[in-house]
Amino acid sequence: MKKKLLIIKKFGGTSLSNIEKIKKAAKLIKKEVLLGNKVVVVVSALGKTTDKLQSLINKISFNSSAEEIDTILSSGEQASSGLMALALKNINVKARSFLGWQVPILTNTSYGKAKILDIDSKILKKEINKGITPVIAGFQGVSNEFRISTIGRGGSDTTAVAIASKLFADRCDIHTDVEGVYTADPRWVRKAKKIDKLTYDEMLEMASVGAQVLEPRSVSLAKNNNIILWVKSSFKNVQGTKIDDSTKLEKRNVSGIVFSKNDSKITLLGIPDKPGVAAKIFGSLANEDINVDMIVQNISSDGKYSDLTFTVPQTDLFKAKKCINRIKDDIKVKNILPDSNVAKISIVGIGMRSNAGIAEDMFKALGKQKINIDLISTSEIKISVLISRRNLKKAINVLHKTYNLG
Amino acid sequence: MKKKLLIIKKFGGTSLSNIEKIKKAAKLIKKEVLLGNKVVVVVSALGKTTDKLQSLINKISFNSSAEEIDTILSSGEQASSGLMALALKNINVKARSFLGWQVPILTNTSYGKAKILDIDSKILKKEINKGITPVIAGFQGVSNEFRISTIGRGGSDTTAVAIASKLFADRCDIHTDVEGVYTADPRWVRKAKKIDKLTYDEMLEMASVGAQVLEPRSVSLAKNNNIILWVKSSFKNVQGTKIDDSTKLEKRNVSGIVFSKNDSKITLLGIPDKPGVAAKIFGSLANEDINVDMIVQNISSDGKYSDLTFTVPQTDLFKAKKCINRIKDDIKVKNILPDSNVAKISIVGIGMRSNAGIAEDMFKALGKQKINIDLISTSEIKISVLISRRNLKKAINVLHKTYNLG
Repeated sequence: MKKKLLIIKKFGGTSLSNIEKIKKAAKLIKKEVLLGNKVVVVVSALGKTTDKLQSLINKISFNSSAEEIDTILSSGEQASSGLMALALKNINVKARSFLGWQVPILTNTSYGKAKILDIDSKILKKEINKGITPVIAGFQGVSNEFRISTIGRGGSDTTAVAIASKLFADRCDIHTDVEGVYTADPRWVRKAKKIDKLTYDEMLEMASVGAQVLEPRSVSLAKNNNIILWVKSSFKNVQGTKIDDSTKLEKRNVSGIVFSKNDSKITLLGIPDKPGVAAKIFGSLANEDINVDMIVQNISSDGKYSDLTFTVPQTDLFKAKKCINRIKDDIKVKNILPDSNVAKISIVGIGMRSNAGIAEDMFKALGKQKINIDLISTSEIKISVLISRRNLKKAINVLHKTYNLG
Repeated sequence: MKKKLLIIKKFGGTSLSNIEKIKKAAKLIKKEVLLGNKVVVVVSALGKTTDKLQSLINKISFNSSAEEIDTILSSGEQASSGLMALALKNINVKARSFLGWQVPILTNTSYGKAKILDIDSKILKKEINKGITPVIAGFQGVSNEFRISTIGRGGSDTTAVAIASKLFADRCDIHTDVEGVYTADPRWVRKAKKIDKLTYDEMLEMASVGAQVLEPRSVSLAKNNNIILWVKSSFKNVQGTKIDDSTKLEKRNVSGIVFSKNDSKITLLGIPDKPGVAAKIFGSLANEDINVDMIVQNISSDGKYSDLTFTVPQTDLFKAKKCINRIKDDIKVKNILPDSNVAKISIVGIGMRSNAGIAEDMFKALGKQKINIDLISTSEIKISVLISRRNLKKAINVLHKTYNLG
């Protein structure tokens, strides 16, 4: 007899944007139940509900209270958990909804970006043993102040993995509107292919630099708890992408290419080359909560001056410029050049750490196409370059070909 | 020094249908707070939110689970309580939202139409004493199964009065999109006037037969607990309608005229006049949960047959016809005549019980206009007649004039 599994299935907002899609998702769940498996469902809010609620909030108040915002936003997942439970019951799957405070999913009091402290699994296990499929409202928990908290945008992925960890689930399926993780965004690269397997670190790097399918925090959590993750279609019954460490020893160079257009570049020209200047610059940016990503510094030929280039999130560009202007006289910078017309492109692969030629292939391929590289940053399993935005599509396609991903 | 008051202020969906209206309501609340009064706010869901959620539910399942429906519907009031708390904070009124389970408002497990069993006032009182204005999500509570319950449509009125009773509030303001209770619907009677004062019984009769401003249950509850109710505008600072028993001894005949177009008439012709036939008919309707309102029976001239006419809610007409058809042969009815083209018009007034001429005035006035009366039913302070729907407007206006309400 085949072993019966405990499976967590998470459905995102795009998979629940209308009643037909909710019913389709319910059928996918029923299929697992009919196989004799136990299923726990985690749902996001329907379609664009969270964005709509956020826009109401913005119209009332910018100087807002995080507790109240969490009360408002969490109502979206509340409705969808009830609707999914109804849809399941309607096709004769025993189900019931659970809100964060009903499980309960205990968090700290950092409303809006709360951390899950613990999940009480007693009631959940009782329901599962009775043959009931719990449908948990994602993204939300409850603090020790007895108020609703939310765990940050995209938090339903994290809810799903946290539940999987607590219940020692056999796997956690993240259902989405694509069929899995791709070697590159199929809207940009015609020959992009679905990836069958990724390690946690590869998925983490890809999620961090642009792949929208998974929240990076949830990948970390899955890695730490050894939860087998699957990224799967909500609509088609096709094999998705499996994420675990079982393929760690396989020899692969580059698994995928991701990009982001959310960064801006700032170049500071002619800074006197004195100790402490960089610390001053990045210290003052950090004080303003501005996240600096890539950094490059060049020394002028006479060794007296240096040029410093770095990237910040595009949404923080204005704040960053103001910040540099404030310390301009102090650091004696000659010129400040902001540039939003850039894109970051990253190749990710576990094989990279033992293969020195990969970076070289990347730079050569881009050079051949006359695509200039502004900045480079690398990790053990990722190389990112900053290029001009107009070259983005060409660059992705040439790299996709270079590493034989098609 | 003027006595500081504790005031409950309830705002309905039409008073909260957009952000501007929410901000206006917040200003009305602030005004009371600036007078040194303590305020507790109760809110309905924004605009048509509940209807929209209900239509999603209907698309999934007709054979639905009341617990899940309550989880879904209550999300509307959850969002509005948070939004109102934000709006208050934004104009420097200390506020916080409370959901039913946070107060808690304890109900039984009759999901969808739950009864409030108790309200724990400890946390509310603590917040009020700290100078914080609680904003309570109306319509919802929590059962001893730790699940969200709702207390029926229009339940926010009941929530407000229940909170007022528990906190011994000095008054309970029901804010709405009209300026108070009128002698007749101003859209139908040009000369309709706002009523300054009504007794609980008058309000109860008016609410039960068509005045939409207040939920009848909440009026009963206010009567039982002697809560002074006010029906007031959400937007204009004008005196509304006060509802209490202080005017009980005043001599007034007719306070107002209300109507309803939600009833249908069924006439059963030629029923053999035998004992037990009426019991059979109304028993089988009751078994189907069909509420019969007005009933008239005539005996034919030879005393052998009788005609029976009664009204049922228009939404139940189909069910009622099916029900009568089932027992048709048993009761030997000759003909069944359904008619939806009817309207019920009621005059309400505390003075009626000691003034026999009032009914006569009504029938005379309608007769003069050649308006036929199909059915009559009376209570101590109300006379209702069923007439043809096409005569409704004329009838209301002539009665409004007859009793000098203009």
